[in-house]
Amino acid sequence: MTSTRRYISKLVKGLPQLAPFRGPEAMERARGSKFKTRLGANESGFGPSPRAVKAMTDAAFDNWMYADPDNQELIEAIARHHHVREENVIVGEGIDGLLGYAIKATLDPGGLVITSHGAYPTFNRHVACHAGRLIKVPYRDDREDLQALCDRAQSTQAKIVYISNPDNPMGSTWEAGDLESFEQSLPADTLLFLDEAYVETAPPGAVPRLEPQNPRVIRFRTFSKAYGLAGARIGYAIAHTTLICAMDKVRNQYGINRVGQLGALEALRDQAYLKQVVARIKASRERLAKIAIENGLQPLSSGANFVTMDCGRDGAFATRVLQEILQRDVFIRAPTVAPLNRCIRVSTGPARDLDIFQGVLAEAMATATKAS
Amino acid sequence: MTSTRRYISKLVKGLPQLAPFRGPEAMERARGSKFKTRLGANESGFGPSPRAVKAMTDAAFDNWMYADPDNQELIEAIARHHHVREENVIVGEGIDGLLGYAIKATLDPGGLVITSHGAYPTFNRHVACHAGRLIKVPYRDDREDLQALCDRAQSTQAKIVYISNPDNPMGSTWEAGDLESFEQSLPADTLLFLDEAYVETAPPGAVPRLEPQNPRVIRFRTFSKAYGLAGARIGYAIAHTTLICAMDKVRNQYGINRVGQLGALEALRDQAYLKQVVARIKASRERLAKIAIENGLQPLSSGANFVTMDCGRDGAFATRVLQEILQRDVFIRAPTVAPLNRCIRVSTGPARDLDIFQGVLAEAMATATKAS
Repeated sequence: MTSTRRYISKLVKGLPQLAPFRGPEAMERARGSKFKTRLGANESGFGPSPRAVKAMTDAAFDNWMYADPDNQELIEAIARHHHVREENVIVGEGIDGLLGYAIKATLDPGGLVITSHGAYPTFNRHVACHAGRLIKVPYRDDREDLQALCDRAQSTQAKIVYISNPDNPMGSTWEAGDLESFEQSLPADTLLFLDEAYVETAPPGAVPRLEPQNPRVIRFRTFSKAYGLAGARIGYAIAHTTLICAMDKVRNQYGINRVGQLGALEALRDQAYLKQVVARIKASRERLAKIAIENGLQPLSSGANFVTMDCGRDGAFATRVLQEILQRDVFIRAPTVAPLNRCIRVSTGPARDLDIFQGVLAEAMATATKAS
Repeated sequence: MTSTRRYISKLVKGLPQLAPFRGPEAMERARGSKFKTRLGANESGFGPSPRAVKAMTDAAFDNWMYADPDNQELIEAIARHHHVREENVIVGEGIDGLLGYAIKATLDPGGLVITSHGAYPTFNRHVACHAGRLIKVPYRDDREDLQALCDRAQSTQAKIVYISNPDNPMGSTWEAGDLESFEQSLPADTLLFLDEAYVETAPPGAVPRLEPQNPRVIRFRTFSKAYGLAGARIGYAIAHTTLICAMDKVRNQYGINRVGQLGALEALRDQAYLKQVVARIKASRERLAKIAIENGLQPLSSGANFVTMDCGRDGAFATRVLQEILQRDVFIRAPTVAPLNRCIRVSTGPARDLDIFQGVLAEAMATATKAS
């Protein structure tokens, strides 16, 4: 008998089969019933701009045509919006796609990469897929530990350091000045991958100035969160032209779908709508914090479109709380790594969704407590 | 001054900046005017199924949600349609995305890959991106040369052989039996990547039986061509479960857009519409052949949704013909490698689009001839 494994590359043989996330649809199939609300993937239940919806509706028939593979109009609009040059912008299949391209563009096999223990698992998967060696630094006080990350970068001369600001899964933020000092204290050959998926809802002081002439930083942005277009798979990166050109060499030239491309363009143009949604997200964060407190959980301060809530005990207890909530048909998620895993994470959303979450939390907490 | 090139990986430093294709939008921007018709990218101007259009229109607002990252419903439907098991199917961002995943899953750096000289440039780019070494075998009589490909695979013990059937850019096909013999005569460790982007319009005898228990063949299919959903970026591969699992490990888990996923599902369900479109494509091929002959070009027999036309002289002449057609606001393409480059390639499409092509061809030929 022929072993079929002989056909698989050495690198991929060594990778785990596990996907970074289990989708709510897979959970629904396993449960045999639908969730009443989706508050687990930090999508925006407020939806995209009506102008974006119209653009996407209008584009449905036209989906017989490939999208412009250069993403030219979208890149122009992004560059204009951020006051950077077009050559400093690249569009990709969400931040997920762009992280892969950025790693491929910069990391040699065996290269060292630093992240935080409990941070974005998709990034870790990309590093493994590119034969990188991953170093994980613990969070400190529910934030990514800039000093420890910097120390590790210095001691290892790592090629890449990844941080997200606002942070996922904790919602914590660093001030712009702290991030700038952090970047400047990294070794000369170390790149900073700054994942700003949640930047639109961050406090203004938490966003470093965009300086794409700096060749050491790649900023990752997305239409998936505040812009309400998670399904469109459109993200972008802002960086030095040398880095953008390198990513451009390895991207899937025809990876961007037409409907998403046009939707993102209109979403970007409708900043008035974004402003409204950001206000609603902030109000929703406040309400989630209140719901948490009323039920004996401690909400963490959040700059993102979710609120992470400390269940007040250990990871096993928070996992029970999570399970009780899921069993009540509410999709949320929780950090998986100690000590972050003492928390659950709940996305912001319209009042009706928060009502549903509020309606199950007390009973979920009581049941989890009784079982402990 | 710091060299910014120091941040780029060795592999990517060595890659060319050139993209595999120049999009019609980039050409329009350079020309300063729009094309009157798009007959250059083998899209389907007949459009997608009205059921798919409705599904995509309905999904526009819901694009705030990620698509199911498992593509479960779509995979189920594909498996049912082809009478294979779900574990033999993977969905990706078009065949382009899947070719990258398949190469990553199977090719070690430095591994040998065989293709035909003048075949799909995106495949070649993926090979370069994965540090593969590419061997190009000439076409013979405007078809991929199975015997020469097999001989090269035997003499080099290459890891992968790529062919497309129906072939792009020539439209030629091989019989199922020829392809099966070809596969069986490859070395034991060689994989066959069989790109069947145009399979829906192929003569029935040109489609080998799907045998996903065979661990040496990956079949690549797409919704971009006859299904009329090029903009959706949805393709799939059918292969042995070991290969599918390996590709699954390296795919962008959230690479598929929601609107495209739902559109592809409805397109697949509407086989009656597909049948109609395939009939229209065949009629359109016949009309294109007639137009070619009337204008002194020789149409090649085509199993795809395009007709490749021999301009009757050398590559320089065909390039002039191409340019004259482009200047008359008709987007077509042409093979770039001799001796294929004596031809131009024209996609099928609705009558109004063929009318436009027909309206410019005589003058384009005359002008090109005069300039020669």
